[in-house]
Amino acid sequence: MMKEYRLMSKEELLSLKEDLDRQYEQVKACGLKLDMSRGKPAADQLDLSMGMMDVLNSEAELKCETGVDCRNYGVIDGIPEAKRLLGEMSEVDPDQIIIYGNSSLNVMFDSIARSMTHGVMGHTPWMKLDKVKFLCPVPGYDRHFKITEYFGIEMINVPMSEDGPDMDMVEELVSTDPSVKGIWCVPKYSNPQGYTYSRQTVDRFARLKPAAPDFRIYWDNAYSIHHLYDDNQDFLEEILHECAKAGNPDIVYKFTSTSKVSFPGSGIAAVAASQNNLEDFRRYMRIQTIGHDKVNQLRHVRFFKDLDGLHEHMRKHARLIRPKFELVLNTLDTELGGLGIGSWTHPHGGYFISFDSMDGCAKAIVAKAKEAGVVLTEAGATFPYGKDPRDSNIRIAPTFPTLEELGKAVEIFVLCVKLASVEKLLKD
Amino acid sequence: MMKEYRLMSKEELLSLKEDLDRQYEQVKACGLKLDMSRGKPAADQLDLSMGMMDVLNSEAELKCETGVDCRNYGVIDGIPEAKRLLGEMSEVDPDQIIIYGNSSLNVMFDSIARSMTHGVMGHTPWMKLDKVKFLCPVPGYDRHFKITEYFGIEMINVPMSEDGPDMDMVEELVSTDPSVKGIWCVPKYSNPQGYTYSRQTVDRFARLKPAAPDFRIYWDNAYSIHHLYDDNQDFLEEILHECAKAGNPDIVYKFTSTSKVSFPGSGIAAVAASQNNLEDFRRYMRIQTIGHDKVNQLRHVRFFKDLDGLHEHMRKHARLIRPKFELVLNTLDTELGGLGIGSWTHPHGGYFISFDSMDGCAKAIVAKAKEAGVVLTEAGATFPYGKDPRDSNIRIAPTFPTLEELGKAVEIFVLCVKLASVEKLLKD
Repeated sequence: MMKEYRLMSKEELLSLKEDLDRQYEQVKACGLKLDMSRGKPAADQLDLSMGMMDVLNSEAELKCETGVDCRNYGVIDGIPEAKRLLGEMSEVDPDQIIIYGNSSLNVMFDSIARSMTHGVMGHTPWMKLDKVKFLCPVPGYDRHFKITEYFGIEMINVPMSEDGPDMDMVEELVSTDPSVKGIWCVPKYSNPQGYTYSRQTVDRFARLKPAAPDFRIYWDNAYSIHHLYDDNQDFLEEILHECAKAGNPDIVYKFTSTSKVSFPGSGIAAVAASQNNLEDFRRYMRIQTIGHDKVNQLRHVRFFKDLDGLHEHMRKHARLIRPKFELVLNTLDTELGGLGIGSWTHPHGGYFISFDSMDGCAKAIVAKAKEAGVVLTEAGATFPYGKDPRDSNIRIAPTFPTLEELGKAVEIFVLCVKLASVEKLLKD
Repeated sequence: MMKEYRLMSKEELLSLKEDLDRQYEQVKACGLKLDMSRGKPAADQLDLSMGMMDVLNSEAELKCETGVDCRNYGVIDGIPEAKRLLGEMSEVDPDQIIIYGNSSLNVMFDSIARSMTHGVMGHTPWMKLDKVKFLCPVPGYDRHFKITEYFGIEMINVPMSEDGPDMDMVEELVSTDPSVKGIWCVPKYSNPQGYTYSRQTVDRFARLKPAAPDFRIYWDNAYSIHHLYDDNQDFLEEILHECAKAGNPDIVYKFTSTSKVSFPGSGIAAVAASQNNLEDFRRYMRIQTIGHDKVNQLRHVRFFKDLDGLHEHMRKHARLIRPKFELVLNTLDTELGGLGIGSWTHPHGGYFISFDSMDGCAKAIVAKAKEAGVVLTEAGATFPYGKDPRDSNIRIAPTFPTLEELGKAVEIFVLCVKLASVEKLLKD
């Protein structure tokens, strides 16, 4: 029954294709319209945070614990209770953190922009250098790559494994090439594979000996508490602590946010880093703004209270999205298992499943799905410059559609994988 | 009684100084602690917006009028109803506006940062040029000057009059020097003088013929609806319309925000500009962020509703701060009028009164006030690089203290002006 496509004769493939073509035409006739392109929480997940709209009403005390009126100007780097909450979430002390506005992506963008115009901790502004390079573990997060591309930074692909980036390659490039100024990392429940960097990987990051004194690890811990299971959670070593121990305290910026905890558009973001780095950030911030939205910081603290509150809340998210991940994975396992036309990850958290088709099929699969009404993240998006050298990686984002929609979407996806694979094999 | 200090004999001055010294020692002994350094609304002004905390509760519909869920990601440039509200406030169509986060200063900073790294509408990035200059009407807003200083942009002082900047000088510099890339303007109830640019000044701005195609007017309309009086309001011509009429549609960025309308830390900011400029902004924003806080945009729209709602609200602000302005002005008029040791503006709106001491006295006055417990904006802050060539301008910010505190603070200020002036005259 489950014969590998590669082992099929041309006749078998042609007959299979006829069957798949018929199914595909039927599916197209349904006129579906589903968007699975982005890692967005669904409406029922957002409903979990509606209590946040009530914790601050017109009777509420809007002073933070140091007595500052959160409604007014001031407090450049966050109110103390927000530093404590996001410090706990980031596993660092409150004084190792700065609180920002609603987007950690914006903070990362600003960090690159600042390095371009003013340099890192007194070093030459990157705009004044002939060449600046970033290492990009692939597949990775498209919006990271867009930032470095926008600033004309050359991106170098570094292959990912289940343990994290290829550290032999990272160490070699970082220690020998002074134009390598950074690396993009999503170290826990990585985007899109859902991998978590191993203890050894984190240790090797902490002990890097960069040729460039202004090299920084961009540690985007976006999914630190975004587990799918209570009993099957990944563990990530705390990088700041490891870097300090290794005598490398300034080597890392650690980003986090509540975007997929509270409301994606109205969360709070933070950076954890060494005092030297934080002061570098603050020098810029003091010119850039009079302060971020402290009322929203207070709103988050009053609603979540502490790390236990955050974890409790994340368990509610998990209850809603776990069935979606399992639906996708079950369908992939059942429908594609043993066919030799694709492989996929089985993450324990985060927002994505990574699918690898046969080489040269990803673009065709995404195009076919789109024609049948299912919009996936663009093929190639998980690689710098949108160029997947093998044209095989597809990011699946299961959270946004309803379970019912998702069921239809995955069936269409599976059909498109089969069809594109058969067509590819017939062409070769 | 009101003898000009300059006409006094040395003996008269010495006797006056003795008297003032005694008063000053008494005042110092009171151990006051008042901060008048920034243009901050007082707590009772912030209370005016507390209803905003109730308009969105957990039962509220959080979709904007196009059906987008404001809690989620997306909508890069603002929800339509927020564009309409801030469009009305800015006197432009909703499609001429982009809505940002909580700080228009941040938007201005980003505009300069973007011009440094990516240039203006396809022109050479300013970082690649040998020299970039900005014109700075003086006295002006210290945070504007800090931004251009931070990016190494050379600042050129342009004197202000009651009609706005010296337009002969502006026209000459802008039309002949291609390294002049911008000018900072607070065109209505200017910071710190409270002047409003005349119709002729605005017309001349609109008809500028810049030598640099990437020259932009940074039109910070921070106090557009911030009148002190119902019946004595300044009128400012709408610059975008005038520029378009003059065939200069792309020459201006117009900034606004609700910082001193709702909550300074939690308002919403906006830019109005030509479609070409807005697209230039959006290209950057699409990389920088997934979108600003739409829930807060919705909160503002639900609370203020429309321009009438904003005006009604601003009348409440005026009722609270008008007595403070009048207290300061009455004290200055009564205590310093006719002494020839200072002049001051009588604004009809905005947040400041500008005081000019005798040349060479401002630093001494601010230092003396500080010693007596009253913190004023640093002398020099109203000039680029913090350098007031005549050492005479002091920005008075009357809104933040209570009326009672303000009364004491102004008495101390007046005393310090007298004392510093006498000391100066005795030294000369």
